[in-house]
Amino acid sequence: MYFEDFQVGDVFTTAAVTLTEAAIIDFAQRYDPQPFHIDNSAASESVYGGLIASGWHVLSLTFAEIVRTGIFDGGGQGSPGIDALRWLKPVRPGDTLHVELTVTDLRTSATRSDRGYVTLAFEILNQHDETVTSYTAVEIMRRRHPGKAEPGAPG
Amino acid sequence: MYFEDFQVGDVFTTAAVTLTEAAIIDFAQRYDPQPFHIDNSAASESVYGGLIASGWHVLSLTFAEIVRTGIFDGGGQGSPGIDALRWLKPVRPGDTLHVELTVTDLRTSATRSDRGYVTLAFEILNQHDETVTSYTAVEIMRRRHPGKAEPGAPG
Repeated sequence: MYFEDFQVGDVFTTAAVTLTEAAIIDFAQRYDPQPFHIDNSAASESVYGGLIASGWHVLSLTFAEIVRTGIFDGGGQGSPGIDALRWLKPVRPGDTLHVELTVTDLRTSATRSDRGYVTLAFEILNQHDETVTSYTAVEIMRRRHPGKAEPGAPG
Repeated sequence: MYFEDFQVGDVFTTAAVTLTEAAIIDFAQRYDPQPFHIDNSAASESVYGGLIASGWHVLSLTFAEIVRTGIFDGGGQGSPGIDALRWLKPVRPGDTLHVELTVTDLRTSATRSDRGYVTLAFEILNQHDETVTSYTAVEIMRRRHPGKAEPGAPG
């Protein structure tokens, strides 16, 4: 997909992915070895009352499903950043997650006529349709038909 | 460490960690399989001009080093979220990263007398002392000496 293929209000939904206890512990041992992510006994005494997935694991694992939807294929050139990332609910072993992405803004580049910026709101939901994590991010997308850059618009 | 052990202005520095090409590709195949993270040839034709690490990889790998500093040992109870996350510069194979964390705000909980909130500014730097990624996050920390909650203060 390319910049021109997105419209404000478009919604994309990923496949679902389930986190096992083994996967939660394996990820956390490499990247986030806090007791409530790697040790059932310590986790039961934490504020979470049991083992929970690292927030980085929730984000990374569901991002793979986002890429697999194909929305970045062809035109996707990565992201400059994320805002308002909130880990709203714990993710526990056996939880099944999917992501709903909504296009909230579209801007062409002020300086590069070959690209535009797609702002997306990300909601990661569990099997009870509860939002466990949310964030907004800008994705850099190539334009199918490079036009004029827009003086005065952001980067 | 506990809530009382932090002061605004405190700076913590992690050990350094180097990203190999194999590690960059392995992480991205699992969590962020975009061409410029997994395929040298496609990456050379992207805006990045060569293979770069997934932003999730940069965040996760350096977070392990943050945990290993011990600043969350004892009192750390995770984070409700992150703001103003910016991937400022690409991270390439062979780059060596470390993190500098600065305490920017301290608040006790309005409703839970056993905890407080430590706001930290995170700067991930490469071997040239360039900031490659930055973000701010709140960490929930247990209080060593639970006091009164503060009516009117946030959460």
